[in-house]
Amino acid sequence: MAIVGWGGELAAEVEAQAEALGRAAVDAGFRVVCGGLGGVMAAACRGAASSEHYTEGDVIGLLPGPDKASANPWVDIVIPTDLGHARNLLVVATGDVVVAVGGGAGTLSELALAWQLGRPVVALAQAEGWGATLAGTSIDARRTDVVHPAADASDAARLAIDLLSAS
Amino acid sequence: MAIVGWGGELAAEVEAQAEALGRAAVDAGFRVVCGGLGGVMAAACRGAASSEHYTEGDVIGLLPGPDKASANPWVDIVIPTDLGHARNLLVVATGDVVVAVGGGAGTLSELALAWQLGRPVVALAQAEGWGATLAGTSIDARRTDVVHPAADASDAARLAIDLLSAS
Amino acid sequence: MAIVGWGGELAAEVEAQAEALGRAAVDAGFRVVCGGLGGVMAAACRGAASSEHYTEGDVIGLLPGPDKASANPWVDIVIPTDLGHARNLLVVATGDVVVAVGGGAGTLSELALAWQLGRPVVALAQAEGWGATLAGTSIDARRTDVVHPAADASDAARLAIDLLSAS
Amino acid sequence: MAIVGWGGELAAEVEAQAEALGRAAVDAGFRVVCGGLGGVMAAACRGAASSEHYTEGDVIGLLPGPDKASANPWVDIVIPTDLGHARNLLVVATGDVVVAVGGGAGTLSELALAWQLGRPVVALAQAEGWGATLAGTSIDARRTDVVHPAADASDAARLAIDLLSAS
Repeated sequence: MAIVGWGGELAAEVEAQAEALGRAAVDAGFRVVCGGLGGVMAAACRGAASSEHYTEGDVIGLLPGPDKASANPWVDIVIPTDLGHARNLLVVATGDVVVAVGGGAGTLSELALAWQLGRPVVALAQAEGWGATLAGTSIDARRTDVVHPAADASDAARLAIDLLSAS
Repeated sequence: MAIVGWGGELAAEVEAQAEALGRAAVDAGFRVVCGGLGGVMAAACRGAASSEHYTEGDVIGLLPGPDKASANPWVDIVIPTDLGHARNLLVVATGDVVVAVGGGAGTLSELALAWQLGRPVVALAQAEGWGATLAGTSIDARRTDVVHPAADASDAARLAIDLLSAS
Repeated sequence: MAIVGWGGELAAEVEAQAEALGRAAVDAGFRVVCGGLGGVMAAACRGAASSEHYTEGDVIGLLPGPDKASANPWVDIVIPTDLGHARNLLVVATGDVVVAVGGGAGTLSELALAWQLGRPVVALAQAEGWGATLAGTSIDARRTDVVHPAADASDAARLAIDLLSAS
Repeated sequence: MAIVGWGGELAAEVEAQAEALGRAAVDAGFRVVCGGLGGVMAAACRGAASSEHYTEGDVIGLLPGPDKASANPWVDIVIPTDLGHARNLLVVATGDVVVAVGGGAGTLSELALAWQLGRPVVALAQAEGWGATLAGTSIDARRTDVVHPAADASDAARLAIDLLSAS
């Protein structure tokens, strides 16, 4: 599961949702892939590592820069792409499903690219930002589905599994 | 000027706007950079090449694939990136200003990335798609400006010049 | 450990060395990252998965194309970069150390990029190709070390550990 | 013509050759594409701009970083890829033919990638570095030609034209 969202400081509520999402993803048998830095990325990685089903190697971080040390401490597999914002594309390409928690322009680019790549897309409807804005809508006419709105982290994990078994 | 928008078949009205935009860009002293393929890209390149101020080298196409022959015939400088959708980022990074004519998910990713990179962004308000949807709005709080709405191609070129001289 | 080398059909001897190298890498506590396709890549992944110390998640494949299904069957974590040959760079950037088994032009690009990135580089001296050609030599004057020649797979794993603890 | 070579300070002789090569390329009707920075890149751009056949737009620089201002002053079309060393690949992909003037590990990666992409490759035999080392040799068995050795800049331009008309 690719988890995308704000990279900066988070409201406590959003941070809790991102952390719960990372945990729910690993609980549900997913690995977590993200941009490897802070904000939603760090919260989701921390959550993933706190799952009872976690094993080392479940958390993958695709960094924009060249320096492995800039990854958050919960990333197991650090890929220092040094591709700048082009790493956004690799994050969503690596996920079998993409889940957004809020998000600004970077997340918006990831949702748009995930849509282009045909990845199922889920967004936490309560988390504001571009995820919430797009939840329930269709990004363009090339696909007949929508950005699936999820009520909370465990709903998102459930949806992710359903979408993958349907595809 | 980076010109982005739909890659597929265009309504006659949109095609005319894209062609007029390419021409207006070169008339105003810009080079045109785009994704080098069809739809808005081809129309804008054709328009650029039809400007009285056009000189060879004014039209740059950054292709997603490895094959130069897939560029539309109005591209002078073909860069076969073979980076897939990651070439979207290079298109907007290469422009000093980015102008959207309609657009689906690919264009949305380009507008989001242009916003992240700090490029001034303009959208034709009449051309529907993501350009029109975002015209007049702010993509996120990192910037205080908006996606500038343009009434038509010559308005877009005027805006582009104003935005660059202000920056 | 990033493992690089020929992508096509291998002589039995070279295949055995690549497989032994993958196994020795995991035995020594490394994960294995490679280009995820055939030849040395597939042999090294198969070897890694056969190690007694292997756990799922230890084998990472960075594919040049967009399709996860093109990975060899021993890759656990598939990253479909769709970056073409630019994925070569990500392979060597992801490794803390890079080991070559033979290799043509693609491997040569990887060794050159690994050198630029400051990664310790090891090459199997018996495996011919660019790995063997460069073994014991310095790629350019920016570094004072050499491409470290290894007599066989277990020697390469030992060298890799020594080089990392020294750096 | 893609021109590659050392990025740092140059011996006077090598600088003169790179400058002559840029001039000879434009004299022969080529545009020049390079990495846009210093050393051989800057000398070749300066030479290109000094050709009697030069028109603005003939010099293209593909920068590794995000900042257009880091291009050398003779670059007309600045593409700030922000892809790090992955921009090396774009330089050689953009050229119809690739010519090396000396060069360390970065140049070596470019020659190897040019070979993989099927671009004709020429190297100044007097300029030392990886260009001279590979001149007259075959990088691997996928091609039956060699890195064509050129005696000087005008010989390289002549070779480049011959190779392109033969291909």
